[in-house]
Amino acid sequence: MSATSASQWIWYPGDFEIYHHLQLNTRREERDYQWPAFWRLDDCYHNVRFRKKVQCDAPEEMTVYAHGVGHVWVDGKKHPFKHPIMLTAGQHDIQVHVARTDGLPCMYIEGAESASDSSWEVNEFGRDWLPAGCNGLYRSREDDPNHFAFQYEKIEPVAIERRADGIVYDYGRETFARIEFEHVEAFTDIHLFYGESLEEALDTEHSILIDTIPAGSTSYHCPARAFRYLFIQCSEQDTYAMSAWYAYLPFNRVGSFTSSNELLNRIWETAEYTFHLNSREFFLDGIKRDRWVWSGDAYQSYFINNYLYFDADITKRTIIALRGKDPIATHTNTILDYSFYWIMSVHAYYQATKDLDFVTFIYPRMKSMMDYCISRTDEDGFIRGRDGDWVFIDWAEYDRTGAVCAEQMLLAESLKAAWACGELLGVGEAAYLQRSERLKEQINARFWDEAHGAYIDSFESGRRNVTRHANIFAILLGIADDQQRESIIQNVLLNDEIPQISTPYFAFYELEVMCQTGQLTHVTKRMEQYWGGMLALGATTFWEEYNPSVSGLDHYGMYGDRYGKSLCHAWGASPIYLLGRYYLGVQSTSPGYETFVVEPQLGGLERIQGTVPVNGGTVTVEMTSDWLHVVSDKAGGMVRINGQVHKLEKDVPFELVLGEQLA
Amino acid sequence: MSATSASQWIWYPGDFEIYHHLQLNTRREERDYQWPAFWRLDDCYHNVRFRKKVQCDAPEEMTVYAHGVGHVWVDGKKHPFKHPIMLTAGQHDIQVHVARTDGLPCMYIEGAESASDSSWEVNEFGRDWLPAGCNGLYRSREDDPNHFAFQYEKIEPVAIERRADGIVYDYGRETFARIEFEHVEAFTDIHLFYGESLEEALDTEHSILIDTIPAGSTSYHCPARAFRYLFIQCSEQDTYAMSAWYAYLPFNRVGSFTSSNELLNRIWETAEYTFHLNSREFFLDGIKRDRWVWSGDAYQSYFINNYLYFDADITKRTIIALRGKDPIATHTNTILDYSFYWIMSVHAYYQATKDLDFVTFIYPRMKSMMDYCISRTDEDGFIRGRDGDWVFIDWAEYDRTGAVCAEQMLLAESLKAAWACGELLGVGEAAYLQRSERLKEQINARFWDEAHGAYIDSFESGRRNVTRHANIFAILLGIADDQQRESIIQNVLLNDEIPQISTPYFAFYELEVMCQTGQLTHVTKRMEQYWGGMLALGATTFWEEYNPSVSGLDHYGMYGDRYGKSLCHAWGASPIYLLGRYYLGVQSTSPGYETFVVEPQLGGLERIQGTVPVNGGTVTVEMTSDWLHVVSDKAGGMVRINGQVHKLEKDVPFELVLGEQLA
Repeated sequence: MSATSASQWIWYPGDFEIYHHLQLNTRREERDYQWPAFWRLDDCYHNVRFRKKVQCDAPEEMTVYAHGVGHVWVDGKKHPFKHPIMLTAGQHDIQVHVARTDGLPCMYIEGAESASDSSWEVNEFGRDWLPAGCNGLYRSREDDPNHFAFQYEKIEPVAIERRADGIVYDYGRETFARIEFEHVEAFTDIHLFYGESLEEALDTEHSILIDTIPAGSTSYHCPARAFRYLFIQCSEQDTYAMSAWYAYLPFNRVGSFTSSNELLNRIWETAEYTFHLNSREFFLDGIKRDRWVWSGDAYQSYFINNYLYFDADITKRTIIALRGKDPIATHTNTILDYSFYWIMSVHAYYQATKDLDFVTFIYPRMKSMMDYCISRTDEDGFIRGRDGDWVFIDWAEYDRTGAVCAEQMLLAESLKAAWACGELLGVGEAAYLQRSERLKEQINARFWDEAHGAYIDSFESGRRNVTRHANIFAILLGIADDQQRESIIQNVLLNDEIPQISTPYFAFYELEVMCQTGQLTHVTKRMEQYWGGMLALGATTFWEEYNPSVSGLDHYGMYGDRYGKSLCHAWGASPIYLLGRYYLGVQSTSPGYETFVVEPQLGGLERIQGTVPVNGGTVTVEMTSDWLHVVSDKAGGMVRINGQVHKLEKDVPFELVLGEQLA
Repeated sequence: MSATSASQWIWYPGDFEIYHHLQLNTRREERDYQWPAFWRLDDCYHNVRFRKKVQCDAPEEMTVYAHGVGHVWVDGKKHPFKHPIMLTAGQHDIQVHVARTDGLPCMYIEGAESASDSSWEVNEFGRDWLPAGCNGLYRSREDDPNHFAFQYEKIEPVAIERRADGIVYDYGRETFARIEFEHVEAFTDIHLFYGESLEEALDTEHSILIDTIPAGSTSYHCPARAFRYLFIQCSEQDTYAMSAWYAYLPFNRVGSFTSSNELLNRIWETAEYTFHLNSREFFLDGIKRDRWVWSGDAYQSYFINNYLYFDADITKRTIIALRGKDPIATHTNTILDYSFYWIMSVHAYYQATKDLDFVTFIYPRMKSMMDYCISRTDEDGFIRGRDGDWVFIDWAEYDRTGAVCAEQMLLAESLKAAWACGELLGVGEAAYLQRSERLKEQINARFWDEAHGAYIDSFESGRRNVTRHANIFAILLGIADDQQRESIIQNVLLNDEIPQISTPYFAFYELEVMCQTGQLTHVTKRMEQYWGGMLALGATTFWEEYNPSVSGLDHYGMYGDRYGKSLCHAWGASPIYLLGRYYLGVQSTSPGYETFVVEPQLGGLERIQGTVPVNGGTVTVEMTSDWLHVVSDKAGGMVRINGQVHKLEKDVPFELVLGEQLA
């Protein structure tokens, strides 16, 4: 055992995230081949130096450990790692130089004043020195930040079925676990087929994830994989000891929700488990297939996180990882809109946390991202997809000719976010704000269609096609004025002739706009139908997509693959956000929840009850049709109910008999 | 054995060099610590994809191998590596996707039309596709470009001395070898002390390079290290089998030189061996200590190489490695002048080889380097060292106040070189040329001192100090006009009151300018004294520095370290260049030696004889005071002698009786 003291492993800030993002994005497998992500993957710097002027009031011993090669300079004299160095009382100039060509160079100092932490500065042999990066997960000398600090817990199957050609294990619900074999005595290969569904595990020709324990092995550890069912095909049964180890990060589950509606309660619980499985190094899209980090998916996860764990670290990790380093090669994940979500995410993170240190760190990368996007706009200020750009918005069909309305709206919002983050640091780019405002005018001038009373997808095709997407953004991003907003509600949102949103990804925004436009009861029904529909089919986690009109095996296919669909997809967890934000009704009204409002709504339910994190505190709400109870351990809250506003004192329960109030 | 066919391992162009540069620059050791280079080290891309439209006239089998994870796409269908894939007759769209997080991703295809070579394109998930990189060293399926393809040859000591505490092995001359221990039976640690000198090997407290074979080892392989003497300290002698393996690259030694002067002949041979030891992954500075790549040192090696191996590949490797990737963090090796040498080296390489493919590849990196330098100039167009910049020029003392004359001269030359390389590709930046010409005018306006008849170091200090450096550049780079040139020769070069050049690094330029200004006999004497002086002290390779006024151990010290001096330093090999270029007198007069001139001079010697490579051909020269014989296997040559020019026909010996000619 080593002294852990206050020492932490330290590295070049952001490089821990970028290094693990590289690892994660090259780990995807499908059957017998690997499938690295199809975008530029940056790496950490491999040669860095740390420095600190250490003031010792008393003599102390310092020992430097590193994952990498290098040395220590103390007052101009070089020392090797791992040897104690005596520091006399007084000030010492200390530099530690660490290189590691195949991983993240990092170092750890056991000492008193010399202990390694973020008070050290680091430099990658560029011109600036930055505060060192660190993470509370790595505090012991024996730790290695090159290995992500997952926890492991042994899990047992709930059912075992012996078949002629092997054994099927059912773990009761979707999981993500490492299968370990010990004491193997089989003379033939042992084949593993993982399944999110039983069908997939048993379909040895088509199941996506497989492993083979070569004949003659005595012990074998498979990489952690997603599954509920595991089919072990082996001509010789009982020739091994197999165990499954759930691999996870412990999160502090702050948010909660229960209601009079048991189905909604199950939806919330299942959403939480779905979200937990996908909350790892970063916010992942799905736990079985890509396990890549997608900016649009992650953007929604940031909001869900704020209503569940309020874990700032995973949000920061994800933002850093998605951005990578300069120079920028393509849009984030190659997708135009995903670059904009990335920029918007920094401002959203600040709004939730008031974490100015992070904005200070990320702002140069935010600015180069913004400038990259601007460099790809045309003379009229609009951005159009160029060669190699993916203009996504949604899987839905709409008119992608030339400048696409929804993209311009996200660009305008990004410009505002980038300007606002600069302003926080006193370096706001006025040109961003001007560009944003001019762009909004241009959007209204070119895309608003008076005849349709709605925004059209494209003004360049002449087709003047209307879809829900841009019109939803127009409301959420404040581009539509009050009159336009009313028009959109009538002519688009409530107009069945406009094609329905078909993906749960965009349903996040659609349901949010419905919540904001007074259709909460309808949202409750949608949740019961859509998420309840999956539960009715036996889902233990929420899917990438659910189409009630298909049946059987057709539920599992996607992208042309029989089991291509992810049955545990982060964006399936949006009820957590919707229920916390619009039913329990808690939202921040100034950065870091220094002020916040609680405006609960029943949405057609008899009773709702739950807790929402508010950046270091919590708000607990309980409401029925004739009674409201709110309490918070954080100051700055107010309760808005029935058109009236009430101050919410810290730790003082607010109670209201709603019948009386209405009278 | 695998079929080797025409297949080569392929990778992202330049990344092989950048990857090995990273490895090399983190490998320096001194006693018990490591000393990575103190500048930004870039890495290869870790995620790349290859593509080719393969036209098969007949069906063929293709098998893809990779160092990394990934898969193969054939006409839209995915396949794993290492499995044969049948291609029908016709055209196929093939992509290979390879990621490797801890090394260089690369791939190899066994096939006929599908064989991997530079006709494949590669992309790092940026926007451009480039011809794949490859290297003739990696042609077999079993090769791994992650390991540099050195050759190994067992060497034996010429003398063994048993001492009470161990054994001293003398290998007869400086070498670079890997020591291997087998059948170790010692019960205590075995300590190795390497020495370029006997004194260093025996000085177990201060020798720079050491190894320890831990007690209980049965076998142990040390990394390759530089030494002539090896002291193995072990209380139990004869408890191991030790062997030494010389690690080298085979170069085709095209150049040669002999003369009537045996000392000069030994100098040339020793220079060749010195240069060979330092010609490895890249042109190194010295073989013992840094083994880093320094742009100023390498610039001289490029010229030496052109008169010895004419190995274009090591020059390209070195240029690529030194440049790294964008964005540029600091000047090359942090040194202002080294950025300029880097830019000049690209043009010099083109002049020697006419290799337009390389210019095409490197030009974007050349342009960003030039633009980086320009971004650090001031309003008056001069470049001054800014925070973190090392204004080197030479170890010598001179006035570094503000804009330094020699730096402006190199900047002007770089601008011209960058413009010229752009012109070759039809994208020449007129602004570079204009800037270069304006800068030359400014240099003459601000630095030329009529009173001294010379260029001064700085016009900003008011000291108007004159050193040789800028004045040497003024002649070599054509900044001085004829009148200024004569003035410099009299007032600087032949003026003993101007401090002498004291480093062999800058002596390269000094001796060159002396050769160009008719002082060849003096250069001969300098070679005899300086390089001959080292031989007289028993040198088997040439040193980083030689000071005839010191003695004994003082010859080995430098940088405050008792054995800090490198006794095998590449820049010590400059006689190869001087003797080939000015004595044998061969120089290119158009890109790639399409035309070249042979203008031999005896420099006070009775007879000179030798061969000079001329880009795919050779010129052999033999000359005495009354006879000249020249022959070349390459067309385009001419012989210039005694003011007359004679055409040199391919393979037709040119002979001239000089007495007659003079008559």
